Amino acid sequence: MTERTESVSTVGIIGLGLMGKPMCLNLLKSGFSVYAHNRSQGKCREVEREGAVTPGSARAMAERVEVVITMLPDTPDVERVVLGEGEVLDALRPGSVLIDMSTISPDFTRELAGRCREKDIAMLDAPVTGGDVGAINGTLSIMVGGESGVVERCRPVFDALGSTVTHVGPVGTGQVVKLANQIVGVGNLLAMSEGLLFARRAGVDPVKAHRAIEGGAAGSWLFTHRGPQILTEDWQPGFTVALQQKDVRLALEAADKCGAPLLGTHLVYSLYQALLNRDLGQDGNHALIKALEYLSGDRS
Amino acid sequence: MTERTESVSTVGIIGLGLMGKPMCLNLLKSGFSVYAHNRSQGKCREVEREGAVTPGSARAMAERVEVVITMLPDTPDVERVVLGEGEVLDALRPGSVLIDMSTISPDFTRELAGRCREKDIAMLDAPVTGGDVGAINGTLSIMVGGESGVVERCRPVFDALGSTVTHVGPVGTGQVVKLANQIVGVGNLLAMSEGLLFARRAGVDPVKAHRAIEGGAAGSWLFTHRGPQILTEDWQPGFTVALQQKDVRLALEAADKCGAPLLGTHLVYSLYQALLNRDLGQDGNHALIKALEYLSGDRS
Repeated sequence: MTERTESVSTVGIIGLGLMGKPMCLNLLKSGFSVYAHNRSQGKCREVEREGAVTPGSARAMAERVEVVITMLPDTPDVERVVLGEGEVLDALRPGSVLIDMSTISPDFTRELAGRCREKDIAMLDAPVTGGDVGAINGTLSIMVGGESGVVERCRPVFDALGSTVTHVGPVGTGQVVKLANQIVGVGNLLAMSEGLLFARRAGVDPVKAHRAIEGGAAGSWLFTHRGPQILTEDWQPGFTVALQQKDVRLALEAADKCGAPLLGTHLVYSLYQALLNRDLGQDGNHALIKALEYLSGDRS
Repeated sequence: MTERTESVSTVGIIGLGLMGKPMCLNLLKSGFSVYAHNRSQGKCREVEREGAVTPGSARAMAERVEVVITMLPDTPDVERVVLGEGEVLDALRPGSVLIDMSTISPDFTRELAGRCREKDIAMLDAPVTGGDVGAINGTLSIMVGGESGVVERCRPVFDALGSTVTHVGPVGTGQVVKLANQIVGVGNLLAMSEGLLFARRAGVDPVKAHRAIEGGAAGSWLFTHRGPQILTEDWQPGFTVALQQKDVRLALEAADKCGAPLLGTHLVYSLYQALLNRDLGQDGNHALIKALEYLSGDRS
């Protein structure tokens, strides 16, 4: 492995969606030379106006930077851009770093890291939590897997994007921790949905129930932040049902491989499936309660 | 209904267990004349030394006080003490108040309130959260169901016992909200168990996974307070599996009556059953993860 200790100054980012675009802007604000690429060109024009260079293809971008960040929806997207038609791996110079900040398969992540290693390219998996608000404010929580030296070299990049950076182990472990996070999160959403539905059906004002429960031992971040949205039937997404379901699918696939019996998470998966069957993929993930309402007859 | 507006000065408490005894001591500290009763006499001697009067029977106690608090394990215990051999309802004077602070059936609570009303006795259901620590420090969260005037009259009593008093609706609703709280709590415990088990089996240091998840959107009170106990295999109870299972049973019974489909809560009930089958009823409720470990083969 080529030793690189100088600090990173040129960064590329592929994927200018809800998360990637504000991350691109925060890299610019922190003084990096930023190269950006996105399939739809409109987003490229938006970040160009703020100072990003958009070479027109992922390959052309990868040729010019020390670090490439991918921020894409799912495993096949990363595969296509890095190994497939995007030709990023082919274009990256030895000694450069690929940081995948998408939420994708831990197994594919390890496979991709192996392919990078063959070309003397380091890889980190660095999925995030904190949503679009965290991306905009630069307060993402970033879970990083990879070699310590590479993590340290890339720390200025992470510091531009997030407020909490946790190095959780070797490559692939960032994705594992992110999926564990999603398992806990959807379980908390199911718990909240059942509690609030029960209170309402048992004749209690759910607003009063929410207030009484929130500050105690059953409280959670999601109960505080998504509970009030449920009470007012505000289904605006912090994170959509469609993306949440994608993450639960990744978690169940990974759990299957390591033999973890995720009874509750399987249940949540089936309930989100019910929402997708009714074209509710763009609702927020707290719309999970609607699946229970179909069962209780409170929603048709 | 007899109008009573003078402030309460004499209070009786029945049940001097892990919760009832420290509650009795806090009533004494707040200056009430406290009468106490407990089936086992040892506990009576302990509170006598602190200034409580122990008339020797629930009936003798109920004859002398304005307010009787019951703090007992389950519905049949309250029934036995108030309507059965304890003869509390028979002994209470018109205009007095029965406050049941146990966690019991909402339906039985309403039935009991009806029986009280016939004798011009007011009733409040006022279950608590906060555990033995909350009982000792007088920082319980109290969910009260009943008439506003009665709640106000008893407020000095509640203020001696808790830091948060929420009047959630008519009689019975305190129990409904408490059960909703338990539904959310056990769901959060299952979510945490699945997330931590997955991380460990997928090869990640669960301590690092816990640290990375705790402060984000999947965080919860139980993740923060019980997660570290799971990581160190400390099964000391904040709340026992046996009592937790009793509360989940009450929740499922009440959900059955009002038609709330609690898929996740049913699952948790079966998993706690597995722990009871292995004589783990005195473990803390976070031992729920052990049930998943039996399934994964990580525990024999």
